[in-house]
Amino acid sequence: MGRTHIWSVAEHLEDILGAVHPLEPIELQLLDAQGCVLVEDITVPVSLPPFDNSSMDGYAVRTADVAGAGEEFPAVLEVIGDVAAGSPGDLTVGPGQAARIMTGAPLPPGAEAVVPVEWTDGGLGEGPVGTMNPHSASPEGATGEVRVHRPAEARAHVRARGSDVKAGERALDAGTVLGPPQLALLAAIGRGSVRVRPRPRVVVLSTGSELTQPGEELPEGHIYDSNSFALTAAARDAGAIAYRVGAVADDAETLRSTIEDQLIRADLLVTTGGVSVGAYDVVKEALQHVGDEDEAGSGIEFRKLAMQPGKPQGFGSIGPDHTPLLALPGNPVSSYVSFELFVRPAIRALMGLKDVSRPTARAELRADTPLSSPSGKRQFLRGRYDEEAGAVTPVGGAGSHLIAALAHADALIVVPEDTTEVAPGAEVEVVLLG
Amino acid sequence: MGRTHIWSVAEHLEDILGAVHPLEPIELQLLDAQGCVLVEDITVPVSLPPFDNSSMDGYAVRTADVAGAGEEFPAVLEVIGDVAAGSPGDLTVGPGQAARIMTGAPLPPGAEAVVPVEWTDGGLGEGPVGTMNPHSASPEGATGEVRVHRPAEARAHVRARGSDVKAGERALDAGTVLGPPQLALLAAIGRGSVRVRPRPRVVVLSTGSELTQPGEELPEGHIYDSNSFALTAAARDAGAIAYRVGAVADDAETLRSTIEDQLIRADLLVTTGGVSVGAYDVVKEALQHVGDEDEAGSGIEFRKLAMQPGKPQGFGSIGPDHTPLLALPGNPVSSYVSFELFVRPAIRALMGLKDVSRPTARAELRADTPLSSPSGKRQFLRGRYDEEAGAVTPVGGAGSHLIAALAHADALIVVPEDTTEVAPGAEVEVVLLG
Repeated sequence: MGRTHIWSVAEHLEDILGAVHPLEPIELQLLDAQGCVLVEDITVPVSLPPFDNSSMDGYAVRTADVAGAGEEFPAVLEVIGDVAAGSPGDLTVGPGQAARIMTGAPLPPGAEAVVPVEWTDGGLGEGPVGTMNPHSASPEGATGEVRVHRPAEARAHVRARGSDVKAGERALDAGTVLGPPQLALLAAIGRGSVRVRPRPRVVVLSTGSELTQPGEELPEGHIYDSNSFALTAAARDAGAIAYRVGAVADDAETLRSTIEDQLIRADLLVTTGGVSVGAYDVVKEALQHVGDEDEAGSGIEFRKLAMQPGKPQGFGSIGPDHTPLLALPGNPVSSYVSFELFVRPAIRALMGLKDVSRPTARAELRADTPLSSPSGKRQFLRGRYDEEAGAVTPVGGAGSHLIAALAHADALIVVPEDTTEVAPGAEVEVVLLG
Repeated sequence: MGRTHIWSVAEHLEDILGAVHPLEPIELQLLDAQGCVLVEDITVPVSLPPFDNSSMDGYAVRTADVAGAGEEFPAVLEVIGDVAAGSPGDLTVGPGQAARIMTGAPLPPGAEAVVPVEWTDGGLGEGPVGTMNPHSASPEGATGEVRVHRPAEARAHVRARGSDVKAGERALDAGTVLGPPQLALLAAIGRGSVRVRPRPRVVVLSTGSELTQPGEELPEGHIYDSNSFALTAAARDAGAIAYRVGAVADDAETLRSTIEDQLIRADLLVTTGGVSVGAYDVVKEALQHVGDEDEAGSGIEFRKLAMQPGKPQGFGSIGPDHTPLLALPGNPVSSYVSFELFVRPAIRALMGLKDVSRPTARAELRADTPLSSPSGKRQFLRGRYDEEAGAVTPVGGAGSHLIAALAHADALIVVPEDTTEVAPGAEVEVVLLG
């Protein structure tokens, strides 16, 4: 497209998502794969549970032996020992016998059901009990007799082999995002690691000779660097491993060498500042000719967008691996809004997520006066969203330097390109910043 | 309370939240404070912006000099040099003069407004221009004459000192959760570090001699440890720094010494398994007498809750620092549901967050048959929530060993204590697992 083309927000995002591809998958240990997208279909290798087992602490019995049992006329069974989870032993329950069994322990051969300990005298020869004596108090295991006060149907309190999932069934589909329950299932079927798309490594640089590190003395004419902090934090929130390089002075050579230096650890580069029409806009100066012109998609293109804030933007790729780079404007609100609209989707596309953008909602505008918006530009104003009321209230003005208002907002109010005024009470679209 | 008391879900949670207090605040660097709760009111030390500055790349002028300017009869001004952001120099704009100025650079003395470069000939003596020549192409700065094609009102394109926030104003209140925009504001006012409540360190242990590490060969009668993975991941999701110790065998002495060993890095301990009525329930055996009986709130109390799954639970504190410990049941679904209901709120209370529990919603039950639920117990079933339709569909059955169903759920369906059946189409409460 020519240099005079003004890009819409949708066109710019489409261009980015068309060029940013999911990262190559790698094998990761389960806890390192948290939040990542699975790239393989996972089939269950062994049924779950792997064997019939008890769902209660109690006694494994033959149903005929406890048929008709009651508190007055309990079934009296010979206790042949313990079946504990993890050390099943080799007991077989014969007629008139019972094995003391723990939750999760395999149902021993011969047994057909489990009666909970609360339905028995616990082998103490007295009334019903609520609990077993600890194994450590009688390490030889249970012996003697147990009185059972209730009958049990076949398979009562038995969890059947394969009742959760069966061998050969699909456990999880490729594309699943791995949260705690999905990691639980993978662990339960024995997977110690899985193939996922890794979290992208995002390098954040701010540019500007006027930028001073917070906590230091502020020289005259300087301001504190805030963009590199905000965008590093925002990149992490989006799912990335983010590195804050901090502020680089307005010198094209320094910027170029800093970026080249950082490429080794970057799946995505984000810069702020230096992309407009000024004489010291070094990001534009340093990067607009770095592409290999013979290679499609290489090099950074600088554009004007039909949006406010965030009009000047750069996007392209850089370095031998064609690492994507987004060059955002330098005003704090502009860079943050640009991050939400363009960088967050790029990060989530690198992760292989389908859902790349923030959720939106429709809300009633709560304001004393109409909002005005420039014609031909999509405007993003800061607001506070009231979910209960389905309403949004503007916070602060449209100025792209108003950081305090941004810090008290939780939504962006979207005013479309062809709208120049929004009346109080009108319905607007809001981007929920979460 | 006596040993026969059956605790409600609400009573147990109230007991936990009454005993778990926010961690002592510490001073953290901005990016380490992400997601943490601020404990100090932050006052603005220096107004923002700290000086009047240009919002555009253009020329700083005196308004009288450009009054009545048009494209046909431009105002012709003497260019006295550059004012760049970060290196303001000492120019003063006199009558008939202009200084070339960059976005963010201080408005020089004498100037009253900024005209954007697009309203001028950029000093080239031809028509209107869209951009400035790079500084690097003419390092001596701008000289000669500029033609201005439009008038400017006083203060046009000038961002006034203090127009974002003024010195002495409140920037952020204690209690604010620090996300990217709040970190931006802190950085912008020069704060390099802040006092916040740190993320709690949570140690997760599963217990059971039947547990094998995923990825290893599964011995007969064993199952894979999944709880320690699920709860470590869930603790991280809740905001904690989580350490997975893994599975400990059913031996009280081993468990006690493992816990003592871990106390040094724990703000909260979570165990799974060994809390019921079996003979090998070593968590109960190991921990129910560890408290110093003379000291209020010390020691772990084991209880029965009126809930399903998750009936047996332990809670108390342990060690010289009275570190809180939650002992959850061992069935995977029971432990996960218990985590969501009790551990997540505990973690968030340690962080000082007000909003400790998952959000809930009302939804229409979508099912072919009624749900049945035991009388006197609050039941939590797994479901899939459809926000658009305001409906929830049960996934899998009530069995507390059904991990596969849990991995396909995104909500818990709550069936109250006094409800034994829920008809299809009825409204139910759902806990949104997010």
